[in-house]
Amino acid sequence: MRKDISPAVIKRLPRYYRYLGDLKEREIVRISSRELSERMHVTASQIRQDLNCFGGFGQQGYGYNVAMLYDEVGKILGLDKTYNLIVIGAGNLGRTIANYQGFEDKGFYVRALFDKDSKKIGKNVRGIDILSMDKLEDYIKKNKVDIAAITIPKESAKKVAMQLASSGIKAIWNFAHTDLRLPPDVHVQNVHLIEGLMNLSYQLTTDELEGNYSDEV
Amino acid sequence: MRKDISPAVIKRLPRYYRYLGDLKEREIVRISSRELSERMHVTASQIRQDLNCFGGFGQQGYGYNVAMLYDEVGKILGLDKTYNLIVIGAGNLGRTIANYQGFEDKGFYVRALFDKDSKKIGKNVRGIDILSMDKLEDYIKKNKVDIAAITIPKESAKKVAMQLASSGIKAIWNFAHTDLRLPPDVHVQNVHLIEGLMNLSYQLTTDELEGNYSDEV
Repeated sequence: MRKDISPAVIKRLPRYYRYLGDLKEREIVRISSRELSERMHVTASQIRQDLNCFGGFGQQGYGYNVAMLYDEVGKILGLDKTYNLIVIGAGNLGRTIANYQGFEDKGFYVRALFDKDSKKIGKNVRGIDILSMDKLEDYIKKNKVDIAAITIPKESAKKVAMQLASSGIKAIWNFAHTDLRLPPDVHVQNVHLIEGLMNLSYQLTTDELEGNYSDEV
Repeated sequence: MRKDISPAVIKRLPRYYRYLGDLKEREIVRISSRELSERMHVTASQIRQDLNCFGGFGQQGYGYNVAMLYDEVGKILGLDKTYNLIVIGAGNLGRTIANYQGFEDKGFYVRALFDKDSKKIGKNVRGIDILSMDKLEDYIKKNKVDIAAITIPKESAKKVAMQLASSGIKAIWNFAHTDLRLPPDVHVQNVHLIEGLMNLSYQLTTDELEGNYSDEV
């Protein structure tokens, strides 16, 4: 059962998919788990174990067919289908998401943006309409929406997330800097951009401290 | 030595910092590790262990002083200082980063953007200049740059990352959808936005498959 597969394995799948896509682009037809592991800086046994969760795909001593494995991992990730997205918030980040061709290339189509700012409502981002927040529930009722991206400040994000969940949305891509508490059948992916910066400032500070420390010895 | 602290602990620090900031905003003065653990959905012993890596800060049976712990975690993360950022690429994502007030609020200041598009060069994003890529190395020589954000396509990202590293940049915030290979003294934080979407499409696909499975039983 897929529900039993560990979150760590699932988190690694997009990276396999990316590396296989790169290999495919460079017209590499076949790769051993050892070669793939060297490129990806993980162990060959981890690759075999991870892929075995979904039934294998390699033949012992013969390696993986790159194109086939790429397609298989894509299917596991659900990338053989397309998804309709809406974006809550038509600010810089919301527009960036709506503008990014790379999401469409993988089957994620932004269909509408929602905002409460009357100056934005009625405009569009490369043809994708910016609608009033008042229309949100009605839009979800009338259209198949698979994923909602939240790009509004945390103060409003919690309320809107509840509204999305009660309207039947099952997947939320949250950029608001807060943890959303939603029913367990709603999947949430949090993107806290500033945490990447904080990790870097931590590393720079550590370098500085340890540098000073060595000087004192 | 801070270099010995596990990456998992470091990754959790920004989340502690965020929760403590929220508590502080709500004027909560003191919190027990049990209370904090309930709010954060982690065990109280994990919180104590994590904070003990940096020397503790709590008194047994007395809890944590919220404002003090917030400041201490901030200091550990290096947030008692400010950082100068440059952004490579003045497209939608680069502009979003330059526009986002929340980074400045935590001490991360975007000082310049770089682009190769002559139509963008010479313009600015809320007063932050867009400079020519040709000026990159010279700019880094003449200004203190702590962190460089890469928001250009993966084809150019690898070359620019090498250029940044050889110019002496020690921290890279990479949004290009590729793993950068850089000298070990250069810290890299990768943000692969599409992987969040792939995680959601995986979850939606799993729900569908398991749903069908139950129906068949």
